[in-house]
Amino acid sequence: MADPRFFDRAGPFTLAELARVSGARLLSDSDEERLFRDVAPLEMAGPDEVSFLDNRKYLAAFRDSRAGAAFIDAATAEEAPPGMALLLASEPYKAYALAAQAFYPALPVIAGLAPSALIDPAAIIQDDCEIGPHVVIEARAQLGRRCRVGANTVIAAGVEIGDDCRIGANVTISHALIGSRVVLHPGVRIGQEGFGFAPDRAGAIKVPQLGRVVIGDDVDIGANTTIDRGSGHDTVIGAGSMIDNLVQIAHNVVLGRCCILAGQVGISGSTRLGDFVMIGGQGGLAGHLNIGSGARIAAKAGLMRDVPAGTTVSGIPAVPIGDFMRQTAVLHSLGRKKDRR
Amino acid sequence: MADPRFFDRAGPFTLAELARVSGARLLSDSDEERLFRDVAPLEMAGPDEVSFLDNRKYLAAFRDSRAGAAFIDAATAEEAPPGMALLLASEPYKAYALAAQAFYPALPVIAGLAPSALIDPAAIIQDDCEIGPHVVIEARAQLGRRCRVGANTVIAAGVEIGDDCRIGANVTISHALIGSRVVLHPGVRIGQEGFGFAPDRAGAIKVPQLGRVVIGDDVDIGANTTIDRGSGHDTVIGAGSMIDNLVQIAHNVVLGRCCILAGQVGISGSTRLGDFVMIGGQGGLAGHLNIGSGARIAAKAGLMRDVPAGTTVSGIPAVPIGDFMRQTAVLHSLGRKKDRR
Amino acid sequence: MADPRFFDRAGPFTLAELARVSGARLLSDSDEERLFRDVAPLEMAGPDEVSFLDNRKYLAAFRDSRAGAAFIDAATAEEAPPGMALLLASEPYKAYALAAQAFYPALPVIAGLAPSALIDPAAIIQDDCEIGPHVVIEARAQLGRRCRVGANTVIAAGVEIGDDCRIGANVTISHALIGSRVVLHPGVRIGQEGFGFAPDRAGAIKVPQLGRVVIGDDVDIGANTTIDRGSGHDTVIGAGSMIDNLVQIAHNVVLGRCCILAGQVGISGSTRLGDFVMIGGQGGLAGHLNIGSGARIAAKAGLMRDVPAGTTVSGIPAVPIGDFMRQTAVLHSLGRKKDRR
Repeated sequence: MADPRFFDRAGPFTLAELARVSGARLLSDSDEERLFRDVAPLEMAGPDEVSFLDNRKYLAAFRDSRAGAAFIDAATAEEAPPGMALLLASEPYKAYALAAQAFYPALPVIAGLAPSALIDPAAIIQDDCEIGPHVVIEARAQLGRRCRVGANTVIAAGVEIGDDCRIGANVTISHALIGSRVVLHPGVRIGQEGFGFAPDRAGAIKVPQLGRVVIGDDVDIGANTTIDRGSGHDTVIGAGSMIDNLVQIAHNVVLGRCCILAGQVGISGSTRLGDFVMIGGQGGLAGHLNIGSGARIAAKAGLMRDVPAGTTVSGIPAVPIGDFMRQTAVLHSLGRKKDRR
Repeated sequence: MADPRFFDRAGPFTLAELARVSGARLLSDSDEERLFRDVAPLEMAGPDEVSFLDNRKYLAAFRDSRAGAAFIDAATAEEAPPGMALLLASEPYKAYALAAQAFYPALPVIAGLAPSALIDPAAIIQDDCEIGPHVVIEARAQLGRRCRVGANTVIAAGVEIGDDCRIGANVTISHALIGSRVVLHPGVRIGQEGFGFAPDRAGAIKVPQLGRVVIGDDVDIGANTTIDRGSGHDTVIGAGSMIDNLVQIAHNVVLGRCCILAGQVGISGSTRLGDFVMIGGQGGLAGHLNIGSGARIAAKAGLMRDVPAGTTVSGIPAVPIGDFMRQTAVLHSLGRKKDRR
Repeated sequence: MADPRFFDRAGPFTLAELARVSGARLLSDSDEERLFRDVAPLEMAGPDEVSFLDNRKYLAAFRDSRAGAAFIDAATAEEAPPGMALLLASEPYKAYALAAQAFYPALPVIAGLAPSALIDPAAIIQDDCEIGPHVVIEARAQLGRRCRVGANTVIAAGVEIGDDCRIGANVTISHALIGSRVVLHPGVRIGQEGFGFAPDRAGAIKVPQLGRVVIGDDVDIGANTTIDRGSGHDTVIGAGSMIDNLVQIAHNVVLGRCCILAGQVGISGSTRLGDFVMIGGQGGLAGHLNIGSGARIAAKAGLMRDVPAGTTVSGIPAVPIGDFMRQTAVLHSLGRKKDRR
């Protein structure tokens, strides 16, 4: 079970309740009233804990699991160990997520301003916000309802933030308009000047960075990620986008809705992504590109060209995934041939 | 126009004035007295706003632009829409930058110490500095004239900083000597111990890191970038160098003058760069290399060897750009041949 | 010599003393009583300073060095300039490190709480800790003996930290159990939520992240590095591991003992490393992999598969180093052939 030093648990819940909140179907009605106290990984779960199987790499752990119940897809039901109650779902991980949310609901916001927080009199902060110690909020900044702001965070003049946002500790935000239900993890940097200058033998000439960062609703931004403000246009992060740690997003970049960027991705200036674009860890995109909706960019890829909607690319420079796999296979075989000589 | 919540604008200016500050030549004298209120990107500019064209990717936007004037090179003048006043410059982006600086001059420093700032009595801070809330400045640290230090920044004992520096929020600096007109964006880490240890089966033996970070004038360092102090020699950032976000510079690295490092570049210990070296995003350099002046290292490149002055390299491991392009072409063609079999 | 603005030096020491603390063997007994005042790099050292040679790249600097003494291996002794006293060691860098520690011992912890630090009454902090300005330590957090915590650092509720830890400025820690003698450099982020969600067309469904970060003794974590807490299992950093700057470690990752991760490495979720694994700069590992003890992963490598113990791999996708070198050679030669046609 989750360490009680760090987590407060709700429940217990019957399997019927867990089936209801997760949208899963309980395989056997006779299990409906069984009580469950927690969620847990397959190897750690006991008889009153519910687990899940989503990746066949862990099938052996599933077969050996002592979990009292598990979310699985119907095709895997027959692999279950005897006595395990089965919650069938087409997407078991999603169903598990909803059940886990029932056991571990989001921490309530405790309204109040820490005495050491410095709030400019011309800032507008709703009474039900929770503002941590040593926070600095400058003039004309606005926070919506039920926002939480972690210790030592700095929100600069004029920034606007919607409702129910969770902002971690040691964050800095300037020149930004932020939607509702946005999560910023510790150390995020939003709105600083982009990397804009005209190189010159006598020294770079700085180009004033006159745009903003505009972040839609339900966006999640990982620890120590940096998002520069636009140079004239805005930098835009579409609603529902999920951005991992240590990602770099340059000025004027536009992300559509529900994009997913894994850790250490870098996107150069003025590149535009459609909706539902996915980029694997350490992927890098050159500037001024257009990436169509639903495109998938593999981890480590280096993009030099536009990518049509729905295409998967990989490699440096990135090519369609089929080409990349053939290139890799040819190279592999040439390497071995040379070896045999 | 730039969002007035975040930016204060000067002006208006006549085209004659804008030509003068930017060094551009106004194509038609009859436009000299036309008044302009702002700068703006091509798609957003109106009749009293001045724009620029620097990248032929945006030629269509240029032809359709409603901008009253634009900076362009002479060769593109004939593509201009009717009625647009033309400011000719061999480097239009540079001329635009200077005009934009006229409309948006750097924010003045407002002299004063925030009451919550903790300044050691043995620190030396000029009276005309602006020191933000919760800043910590330790003993014997020195700041020159007209420096601005953002909230929650920590400047450790003995650090020396020149005049007119802008230091963002949540920055940490130790063991460093910093020139004038240096900009440190939020979350920058300067002067911490380098990654110096002797591996040992019983546990790594730490090597005391006894050097400093020495930063020249007019250097710009991006958000969350890290620069470790030297181990014995210093880590040196040459004057006029521009460093983007999330860059890692290890101990004893030396950058010459006016180097340009894009986002997420990493340079391993004791590697030395000449002047005017450029490194594309996510480029990585092994340790103990010598990179000649004017070398260009492509985005994503992985450098294992020295690079002569003036050379452009790409690939992992990096090779001269011509070789890289041939390798890429061969690989591409082999991949397709295999497919056809 | 090290800049006295930043470093306090002990000594002087006789060569006999330096030989003793470093485990080196003094080649000539007649040098035993010579006094040395400092350590220094070969090019900078003078007659009363001791240096070292560990990398034959610097052999010319060794021959020209004015250093009064140097740590070297026996095989290189004959290259020494006349008059230089020689301290023979099979691992000269290690011996140098121990001598340098004698001249520059770790700064003593100055017990005390800064008046501006905010310590929850239910936190447990030993009296001999040094807690910097504006530090925030929440309820039930525990710090062992002689810990130093830098300015503006935030330690969240329930976190447990062992003895003799050095925590830099602007660090955030939550949901973590940390051993003794651990060093966290400025801007480190530990314990935030992992990148855990189930993608959904209607918006990602967050998966509660219910694990912790467990860090063993003698671990060193570089500036602005991020380590997410586990999702159910813990994220584990084995004792003695050394992690450089800007590294990303995702949820549920397990590092064994004494792993070494260079700058900007990224490890995806649930990947497990054995003991003594080394990863070069910007290396990236996919999720759910097993990396055997003693494996070496080259800089820039992109790992998609498990790596057996003791194996060295390189490339994207990573292959055994011999295969990688052959692939590189073949590609190189094909590129040139095409050129000659």
